[in-house]
Formats: sequence, structure tokens, C-alpha cells
Amino acid sequence: MQFDLERLGVHESVDAVFPAAELVDHLTDLDGTVDVIRDDEIAACDAVVTLEHRDEFLECDWVHSIQSGVDRFPFDALEAADVILTNSTGIHGRSVGETVAGYLLSFSRRLHDLAANQQANRWEQPAWDEGFTLTGKTVCVIGTGTLGRGVADVLGPLGLRVIGVRRSGDPVSGFEAVYPNDELHEAIRDAEFVVATVPLTDETHTSSTPRRSTRCARTPTSSTSLAVQSPTSPR
Amino acid sequence: MQFDLERLGVHESVDAVFPAAELVDHLTDLDGTVDVIRDDEIAACDAVVTLEHRDEFLECDWVHSIQSGVDRFPFDALEAADVILTNSTGIHGRSVGETVAGYLLSFSRRLHDLAANQQANRWEQPAWDEGFTLTGKTVCVIGTGTLGRGVADVLGPLGLRVIGVRRSGDPVSGFEAVYPNDELHEAIRDAEFVVATVPLTDETHTSSTPRRSTRCARTPTSSTSLAVQSPTSPR
Repeated sequence: MQFDLERLGVHESVDAVFPAAELVDHLTDLDGTVDVIRDDEIAACDAVVTLEHRDEFLECDWVHSIQSGVDRFPFDALEAADVILTNSTGIHGRSVGETVAGYLLSFSRRLHDLAANQQANRWEQPAWDEGFTLTGKTVCVIGTGTLGRGVADVLGPLGLRVIGVRRSGDPVSGFEAVYPNDELHEAIRDAEFVVATVPLTDETHTSSTPRRSTRCARTPTSSTSLAVQSPTSPR
Repeated sequence: MQFDLERLGVHESVDAVFPAAELVDHLTDLDGTVDVIRDDEIAACDAVVTLEHRDEFLECDWVHSIQSGVDRFPFDALEAADVILTNSTGIHGRSVGETVAGYLLSFSRRLHDLAANQQANRWEQPAWDEGFTLTGKTVCVIGTGTLGRGVADVLGPLGLRVIGVRRSGDPVSGFEAVYPNDELHEAIRDAEFVVATVPLTDETHTSSTPRRSTRCARTPTSSTSLAVQSPTSPR
């Protein structure tokens, strides 16, 4: 599939994640016009870069989602209208891997408690036997795509035993063992940590619910608190 | 030097760090009596395990400090009284290394801000360009003893370039470069992070003051905030 790119619009919905104008600045080498667009300018574009979906995109040749997840786009309608949909999968492996490592270390070294104490002007230390080291602990990563591999690439060298869960159960570099989806319970049984790096689909949206935590052999509450609870969640 | 160990006392000052009775439980295999002691029982002991110093220890044969730091003990008086002083250096490399890694990742992934937001019920995200990844960043570790090497052993595999500062400037495994003390300014010049892992001595107690941060080439405030500011410090 080929088309002439005369005008590329960076849709203003991108501003929710980063300044749309910054991306325009990075694309000045392209032939054709590149600018930030509002909804009423979509019709004039061959291609758009966007966070949100608009029905007007069905008239474009190419829609690029700035996120890895594309669950907000109507696949069937785009396909019927012959519109290419691309996403930014592949760019977040390292940053997600380091973020997950930061969560695990915050948890094992009780840094989240220290930060909370600091906020409350409390001079308290965690109990002497509360903290622990990650070496030799087991983490089960559900999903072995870019994000899951990024997590494994950071956690393995930290001394954790990394096992994975993927549909096929086929081996993946960086994972000591990989289980197929239908052996999820076996996979998380010996894990101190469970990390979910799966896209949101009909198949996955109920697979990581807290009730699974009862399947973990050790410290179930602790094991899954990182997987199911974001540190930015309002309490 | 040799002596008969008839009674080992675990001094109650240990309770400030962990339950003294727990240690007694771990030492039941020893010949002789092992129990938790108060000050008035020191005289009956050949050896003591302790956090704090007491002048009565000068009558013992052996004093073991549960900490790596022994700056609270009077070296000259102990030596004159022929008392052996030992410490627990060597046991904290991994836990300190992982704690430092947790600080760096909290900082780079802004997890400390997320924890603070959670405490204040604020639904906010860091600015789009605030977070960064550690790969390729440089950390300067001042002091290459057990703790410094523990830090290097964790941060190196995370993808950081680890350089060190030690008196001799001799190479140390796990450090890409090592500078002697008198080249400290050169050592920290290109570092995004500075980690101080030196014992408290007359020589070191002014070496890591905040004013050194002005010697860092990049983001000086950020670089040294972890080194000079504990997350548990009252604000």
C-alpha cells in the first residue's frame, strides 16, 4: 500500500500525553505539511498522529496511534475504509522495565513507606524484618511482548528468577521458563511478584483480577499488590 | 588471641535495631550462656554484642558491634584494655545496593512523586519529559568498600556506567574507572548521580556536603539530592 503524504496532522488529542507541537518540530524533515490539527482540519490530512479516535479519520489513508494500546480504535470500520492503523509498540520496553524494577525495589526496600512518612512528617522506620532483597525471588510476567521482555531484561540482571506466561508457551529469551495461558495458576504459584504486561483485549481484561492472588503460595497480598494497584490510584 | 566464652551477652541496646532475643535464639548452638543483658549484667560477660558503647565493656574480652560503623566506640580505650572490637561489615552490600538502585529508579521514574500524590489524594502525572531511563547514565560511588561494591554490583547490570572514588585510586572490579580522593571533583564532573558509601571519620565527614554538587556538570540539584538527602528526613 502506498500513498502520497501531502499533509500530516498531529491531532490535538496528543496534547494529553505530550505537546503535539514538539512532535511537529521533530518531523520538519518530511516532505509535505506537518502541523497540529483540530477536528475540523482532519479532512484536509492524508495521515494523522493521534491519541483519540475520530470518525473523520476514516477518510484518511493512515492513522498512527501514539500509544501501544489501540483498543480505542474501531478495527472493523478502519479496515472497511482501507485505513492503515499503526501504533508505537516497541518503544516502551526499557522504560516500563525500569518502572517495574522501581516498583519492586520500592516495595522490597519499603521506599513507598518512607515517601509516605516524609509527606506526613513522620520519623519512622520500617520494622527490622520488613525489608528484603530481590536476589533469588521469582517474578512471573504475564505477556512476553515488548513490555514483558523489557521487564525481563531489567529484572533478570537484578538477580530475580523471571518466568513468563504467553499464549503459545514457547520459550522467550530472558525468561527461565514460559507457561501457556492455561497454566497461569501454575506459573504464579511460586512467584513473589506478578507483573501483567498484556494489551487490553476481551481475552485479557479479566485475567489479572485480584482474586488470582489467592493462587500464589506465598504472601499473596504483597505479591500482587504491585500488579493490580497503581501507585497513582486515588485511595 | 584466645579466650573461653562462658557467657555472651546481647546488650539490650540492640533492641533499637532488631529484637535482641531473636539473636539469642540464633546463637543457641554456642557453648556457654547466651542471653539478653542490661547494663548491670555486663560485668558477668566475657563478650557482648551491642549497638551502643558502655564503659563497662572495657572489662570484657570481646565487643561485637552489630553495625558496620564503629565510630561510637573509643578505639584507644578498648585497645589499652586489650578488648577485641569487631563489627558486621560485609553483610550489607546487597541490601544497600538494592536500596540505592531503588532510590535511583524512584527518582528517574518519578515514583517518589507518585507516592506523594497518592498520600495527598492528587491525581497527577509527572510532566511528559520528566522521567528518564538509567541506561547509559553515569553514577559516581564515593567509597569502594563492601557498600560501594554492593552498589556497583546492582547498578552496573542496570546499564549505568559506574565510576568510583577511593583513597588509592586503584582499580576495583565492577567499576569502569576509579579516581583517588584528590580527584573527587573530576570524578563527579560527568555523573548524573553521586552515591556516598564512606564510613563516618574525621576525614570523610565534610567530603560530601551539598556545595560539592556545584562541581557536577549536569543537573546538579538532581544529581546529589539522593546522596545528601534521606527520604525519611523530616522536612
